[in-house]
Amino acid sequence: MRRIRIEVAYDGTEFHGWQVQPGLNTIQGELEKAVSEIEGRAVNVAGSGRTDAGVHALAQVAAFSIENPIPLANLRRALNRLLPRAIRVMRVEETGAAFHPRYSARAKTYEYRVWRTEICPPMRRLYVCYFPYPLDEKRMAESAAVFQGEHDFSAFAAADEKDEAGGSKVRTVFDSTLWREGDELIYRVRGSGFLKHMVRMMMGTLIEAGKGNLGREELLRRLEPGFQGKAGPAMPASGLCLISVEYERE
Amino acid sequence: MRRIRIEVAYDGTEFHGWQVQPGLNTIQGELEKAVSEIEGRAVNVAGSGRTDAGVHALAQVAAFSIENPIPLANLRRALNRLLPRAIRVMRVEETGAAFHPRYSARAKTYEYRVWRTEICPPMRRLYVCYFPYPLDEKRMAESAAVFQGEHDFSAFAAADEKDEAGGSKVRTVFDSTLWREGDELIYRVRGSGFLKHMVRMMMGTLIEAGKGNLGREELLRRLEPGFQGKAGPAMPASGLCLISVEYERE
Repeated sequence: MRRIRIEVAYDGTEFHGWQVQPGLNTIQGELEKAVSEIEGRAVNVAGSGRTDAGVHALAQVAAFSIENPIPLANLRRALNRLLPRAIRVMRVEETGAAFHPRYSARAKTYEYRVWRTEICPPMRRLYVCYFPYPLDEKRMAESAAVFQGEHDFSAFAAADEKDEAGGSKVRTVFDSTLWREGDELIYRVRGSGFLKHMVRMMMGTLIEAGKGNLGREELLRRLEPGFQGKAGPAMPASGLCLISVEYERE
Repeated sequence: MRRIRIEVAYDGTEFHGWQVQPGLNTIQGELEKAVSEIEGRAVNVAGSGRTDAGVHALAQVAAFSIENPIPLANLRRALNRLLPRAIRVMRVEETGAAFHPRYSARAKTYEYRVWRTEICPPMRRLYVCYFPYPLDEKRMAESAAVFQGEHDFSAFAAADEKDEAGGSKVRTVFDSTLWREGDELIYRVRGSGFLKHMVRMMMGTLIEAGKGNLGREELLRRLEPGFQGKAGPAMPASGLCLISVEYERE
């Protein structure tokens, strides 16, 4: 049995998220269909984690096991021939039998993009969140830095988050920065792992700070264990993109 | 009566082209719906020319006449509120009663983008044509220059082209250049006017030249009056974008 690791880019606009759901188009569902066709039997494709409906990825990591001796370059081409054009397998490699894209992951990086001027160009609309209203972007950049470190992110998780790591909602954020690039405000966060809706709620919190509704002390309080209530609203999926997943050997 | 000139950007992916067609989503149809709602009666919106289904625009020019005294900035905002996000009115201005976006136009610029590597990123797929096969790009750039000047473009028109300028298919190409930018090959052409499918057939011809199937002499022959037959196949709509329309006063 060969264990194959792939890096997958996708435009999440038309999909009901990563995870297989009966009767719905999902990224994992499309990948499993393609791999199963090549292997000639049903094959499970495991991902580094779920992404929500409408969320994009530049390099989601996934893995599967096959017997087929097809060379790697041919496998990549065969997968891309079978997949819809909104999903592309960018890299394919052989990996160890023990490799699991979720359990082996050490860090993930996400980017959230906000369009800041009155008119969002049609060709950008699917890849940003449109928010042309006044924001104190300097204050937002300062607030972004507050997320760095190990915190209890319970307030930054969807109500239906099912924690699979034993219930703890403590995560470590390694880097958390926000900057302006042309007409887009970009928030980039790298962390040990992310809860459901976590980045979108962090972004919602930064927007609150930018509106002047949230000071540094209040933001810190939301990161304390036992904080009751939920942090800023989850921002729309379209602005979010999974940039990379890191593993030990890398 | 006020005569209003607008510049419109659109993602043509989901539309059946510019021109109104009963029961189909079109750019002109959406604009007429929005303007008519503001004016309170049916208003015709004239464009600088049609674009085919799937073709994009950065600055298509259109015009309409209304009685409504609404200030220009509010008109732009109201239009963008009523329009789907795939269509944005970028500029609005008052113009003379005689202004007609088609008859007053002096030049148009189109760009055609070809994705050249094996894997086209999902977020680019709607805005390029995917062609990863070998091409002599230097030869294509040389061939592109051959289009410059006044020629009979009969061989570069769709079979059902209905010429509205009295039957002549003579057009002047002011600039015709092709260059590489990262993984994209970009063809930019500026001319007095374009026949139906003309840019897509010019691009198809350049691809033929790039494959080594078409020399300079054969290309020149296709531009001679009385040439029988059709030039290279029309390339897919997704790679084409109307960049700008020029008028005398500009």
